[in-house]
Amino acid sequence: MTAAAEQLPGDVFALEIREQPAALRRLLEHEAEYASVGRLLAERRPTLVRLAAHGSSDNAASYGIYAFGLLPGWTALRDSISLSVYYGAELDLSGSVVLALSQSGRTPDVIAYVERARRRGALTIALTNDPTSELAQAAEAMLPLAAGPERAIAATKTYVNQLAGLVLLAGHAAERGKQVASGLRLTADLLDGVMDELAVATAAVAPPFAHIGRMFVIGRGIEFATAREVALKLTETCRVAAAPLTATDLAHGPIAALDPLFPVWTIASHGETLGATVDAAARVRKAGALLVASGNAAAEIEGAAYALPVPEAPLPLLAPLLSVVPGQLFAASLARAKGLDADSPIGLSKVTLAR
Amino acid sequence: MTAAAEQLPGDVFALEIREQPAALRRLLEHEAEYASVGRLLAERRPTLVRLAAHGSSDNAASYGIYAFGLLPGWTALRDSISLSVYYGAELDLSGSVVLALSQSGRTPDVIAYVERARRRGALTIALTNDPTSELAQAAEAMLPLAAGPERAIAATKTYVNQLAGLVLLAGHAAERGKQVASGLRLTADLLDGVMDELAVATAAVAPPFAHIGRMFVIGRGIEFATAREVALKLTETCRVAAAPLTATDLAHGPIAALDPLFPVWTIASHGETLGATVDAAARVRKAGALLVASGNAAAEIEGAAYALPVPEAPLPLLAPLLSVVPGQLFAASLARAKGLDADSPIGLSKVTLAR
Repeated sequence: MTAAAEQLPGDVFALEIREQPAALRRLLEHEAEYASVGRLLAERRPTLVRLAAHGSSDNAASYGIYAFGLLPGWTALRDSISLSVYYGAELDLSGSVVLALSQSGRTPDVIAYVERARRRGALTIALTNDPTSELAQAAEAMLPLAAGPERAIAATKTYVNQLAGLVLLAGHAAERGKQVASGLRLTADLLDGVMDELAVATAAVAPPFAHIGRMFVIGRGIEFATAREVALKLTETCRVAAAPLTATDLAHGPIAALDPLFPVWTIASHGETLGATVDAAARVRKAGALLVASGNAAAEIEGAAYALPVPEAPLPLLAPLLSVVPGQLFAASLARAKGLDADSPIGLSKVTLAR
Repeated sequence: MTAAAEQLPGDVFALEIREQPAALRRLLEHEAEYASVGRLLAERRPTLVRLAAHGSSDNAASYGIYAFGLLPGWTALRDSISLSVYYGAELDLSGSVVLALSQSGRTPDVIAYVERARRRGALTIALTNDPTSELAQAAEAMLPLAAGPERAIAATKTYVNQLAGLVLLAGHAAERGKQVASGLRLTADLLDGVMDELAVATAAVAPPFAHIGRMFVIGRGIEFATAREVALKLTETCRVAAAPLTATDLAHGPIAALDPLFPVWTIASHGETLGATVDAAARVRKAGALLVASGNAAAEIEGAAYALPVPEAPLPLLAPLLSVVPGQLFAASLARAKGLDADSPIGLSKVTLAR
């Protein structure tokens, strides 16, 4: 009680970021459930994995496209909720698996989407923190995110557990579940090991950004989800207009808007898309914009004013679980530097009931 | 020659916006080709329509999801280019149709995607302005966008013709091609009829935005493509950090960033998603942000500081061809008000060869 009374604005958000390794281990306690649903998927051999989500959960869905594409080799898409729920499109859902992601399990659109998809023959699976929620009941199967109660309004540990849940399920669908689970365990340890150091490093970088109104956050491939999530955290907790872009889309127009007061944050991880990200960073430098580099290949980004590297992940596909943390910590520090309360941004509520 | 010498910066961009009805009619001269490929698609009954594009063409692809979902009732997705091209994911493409969109037909990523998809058994179709381009040659079939030479760097008439090409193809795949073609013809006439009036109205709205650095552009369903495209035009020609959001995603975080100097542009059209857009606009007003309303249901947005209505489309699905025009004209006027040259924004080139 006294501890809570002594909390400063933003402390809950910061604590939940630091709690992520523990949250990840809680999800891994449910590995058997993920293995069982993964086997079910492997038997069904779905023609399509349809991901349904909004907000931060939809950012995690961007990662799901790669987890399913690269592990079992299945096509996954962030499905259009409005096409089904509002327009009532008569799509063929036989052969589809639906993965519905919602922290609270109460997002109305997502529940309506699942109910409809289930009626139309899709195998529906809910991934949520609340196993008793309406979403969990609407779906045929439920996989717990097990992030624990999230008290800050902006999601952090739920996002990381959504990535973990998606890759664990994809791993089990590809009969590589044990390898993925063991990689996730090591990732939790790595996160524990670097959290203090990263918190200090990001706290030092944030203050010069206190008067920045806009940013681009750039990633590609498996790190596009990270770019989306970091941009969302900056927008909702720091009131920065931060737009996520793929490394390539930057060149297709938005680069023209850059100037020295329009910084660009790049998510650079070793792997197949690093070249495109390095190229994009070079274009940003040429445009005279300030560059921040994060990710396990931050050192490859030449001319970055600030670098916030993270360790290599045990498996390349797990890099995004580490890459997102500097962005989360930066958002916590920047909100504090701007005198904003990251725990409860104006105009937001924990459960978004908006359609 | 003298005419060209007398041109002011931004004149080419403005002229190409005004040329859109004529460009649309040029595309319709190729209706037989669209009908023929549409019949081919109807015979194949694809399990999936994979749209591959970057930048403005990728915005048009957002519309393609609805055109194919609502006309033949097929699932279309904006496919991940990097998953195939960079990561080499072993996806099953048998039964897939690929629609590759590129103004120039020279976007390297998109060409590489098509080459790979064709080798793996997908039916590949290129939609491009250049029938002799590398993309046109890489694909099995080519459909001309016929927008004519685009001289301004930021695409306008090509975007509208991409919407038209996608809906015409989807219409023919659904044996409703004639109805769609006749709707597109009427749309060209409607555009001709309102262009002058819209140009005057947007020119009056632009100057107060000269000192605005950031905006959200909100749309949902078939109008999400419009929100993406208007945001991109504002970013590339006016150096505004304009981020597109679905009406629902606004509530999932970004609303917290709004203030009186952070205006929101809403695309409001009559139809299934108008309610969600009206709700989002009410949230924006509550947050104290300035509201601009465009689209054929602009009048439904209460409390908008500026309304830029367009006529109802001959078919509801064709509304986005009209809704985008106020945003394009606004970008032209705002660039001029800010002393920027919309014809050739700094750092951009007509053909984007960036990977």
